[in-house]
Amino acid sequence: MPQPKYLTGDTAAIEEFLSRFDVFLFDCDGVLWSGDHLFPNVPETIEMLRKKGKQLVFVTNNSTKSRADYKKKFDKLGIPAEVEEVFGSSYSAAVYIARILKLPAPKNKVFVLGESGVEQELDAEGVLYIGGTDAAFRRDIEPEDFTNLANGSALDPDVGVVLTGLDFHLNYLKMATAFQYLQRGAVYLATNIDSTLPNAHSLFPGAGASGAGLTKAIGKEPLSLGKPSQAMMDAVEGKFQFDRSRACMIGDRLNTDIQFGIDGKLGGTLAVLTGVSKKEEFLAEDAPTKPMAYVNSLGDLLM
Amino acid sequence: MPQPKYLTGDTAAIEEFLSRFDVFLFDCDGVLWSGDHLFPNVPETIEMLRKKGKQLVFVTNNSTKSRADYKKKFDKLGIPAEVEEVFGSSYSAAVYIARILKLPAPKNKVFVLGESGVEQELDAEGVLYIGGTDAAFRRDIEPEDFTNLANGSALDPDVGVVLTGLDFHLNYLKMATAFQYLQRGAVYLATNIDSTLPNAHSLFPGAGASGAGLTKAIGKEPLSLGKPSQAMMDAVEGKFQFDRSRACMIGDRLNTDIQFGIDGKLGGTLAVLTGVSKKEEFLAEDAPTKPMAYVNSLGDLLM
Repeated sequence: MPQPKYLTGDTAAIEEFLSRFDVFLFDCDGVLWSGDHLFPNVPETIEMLRKKGKQLVFVTNNSTKSRADYKKKFDKLGIPAEVEEVFGSSYSAAVYIARILKLPAPKNKVFVLGESGVEQELDAEGVLYIGGTDAAFRRDIEPEDFTNLANGSALDPDVGVVLTGLDFHLNYLKMATAFQYLQRGAVYLATNIDSTLPNAHSLFPGAGASGAGLTKAIGKEPLSLGKPSQAMMDAVEGKFQFDRSRACMIGDRLNTDIQFGIDGKLGGTLAVLTGVSKKEEFLAEDAPTKPMAYVNSLGDLLM
Repeated sequence: MPQPKYLTGDTAAIEEFLSRFDVFLFDCDGVLWSGDHLFPNVPETIEMLRKKGKQLVFVTNNSTKSRADYKKKFDKLGIPAEVEEVFGSSYSAAVYIARILKLPAPKNKVFVLGESGVEQELDAEGVLYIGGTDAAFRRDIEPEDFTNLANGSALDPDVGVVLTGLDFHLNYLKMATAFQYLQRGAVYLATNIDSTLPNAHSLFPGAGASGAGLTKAIGKEPLSLGKPSQAMMDAVEGKFQFDRSRACMIGDRLNTDIQFGIDGKLGGTLAVLTGVSKKEEFLAEDAPTKPMAYVNSLGDLLM
């Protein structure tokens, strides 16, 4: 595998790299921003790519936000973007459930372990759900819950899917309820399974961590609808209709973003060093995942 | 591997089996009871073994209860037992931290993800801890928590160990806090890592599930001080001083109880079918773990 090309400071190389692609898929957290911290020159870089006529897609695994929520975040941070350019893992999961899985009614309701971003996208696709941010599930488990979950009286017989995303309000009651649905045969899906979430210049538990208890209990992994799952790439391509050989994935994580682009047979991948993965990880001779090129930060592309 | 011998209803075989052992190690949940449901003839069977002069040890992975809590449960269900006969995974972990790990003060405090059983046993061994049932951690994570955890201002610099057990009050704040300690080099221990907890004739998420998010985030497994970890067997033998060839482990789970006895080179293992594992699992030719013998339920040993 060829070594990744370092583009920072090399204007000619950047020009040549950008000319190879018509479409850029961006990861958001760790690329455009970290939490509420915008990285330098990001709006200007995005604007520059638009002026060059590039199509931009913001592909994010953060399931806590809907596309509309993301649009607000872009606006707040001053990054020019449209709702339709955002493709989140919650949207990806909603599309999968509504258009691909298509379980026959009435047993097609979703039990959600996650935040409102998941709920909004399920609503947008007309998918019925329970759980999620419902206050009835945001409490401690009580002795009678064990009985009522075990005998099924606390369960909705129409639930046919369990969908997990990053849940800042995870608790034992929700995990136990979801586990009962899985034991009764519900389809097990995840918006994404990232182990960590970059925030405040540090790492916090990600969607893969908030769903890991359920995965451990049931003893099998969910089907993930986020990066690097190609179910997400297929959905992105289905929506935006582009030539994969003229598309480039830009991200900070080797095992999600960069692998997502490689597995999807995109024309290129670009790593930024403002997030999770360090350059030592992909410059090592035996690194399993190598981007085509890398920059210190996205703003280094600005010319 | 010889096929497990079925003892139910075979008085001569039971008599012969019991005569081989001086010590019986019992799992509790799934063997003596399920939740608050006592299995038939359990007190009488325990009494019968005592009359035959057997030494009894109740070895349990349930970390939510201390030995004193367990004694109360035995009393309530009418099973004759002494506090000193109980060996729980919380006690096992406390003994490991205090007597084996022995981190130098002051960086020897424990951050607990678990219930009061863990706290009581740490107290009994003089180990300092934070977290656990402290109401300060039983709340939703707030935006400023991300900042204060990331910059360390919300962390106790004396924490050198993270100990996870079954936590009915798990939440994202506790998981994120524990994750920060692990990222800063804290030793990662678990009372046990059972994936499920039998209760109300069904399965619920176990300690391995409540700790799985942290394991996923940090990307490594904790050292488990519960079955089938031999760290627990060594501690049990150290306390009770017996000949392993004259000891028998009785349990309902192949991959914890029975494996625990086999790995510990005990003279025998006996499976009961009142808990997690089904007989089909160990009667299969290629079953990785086979008990020496099995009964439908513990009370079948009563003669």
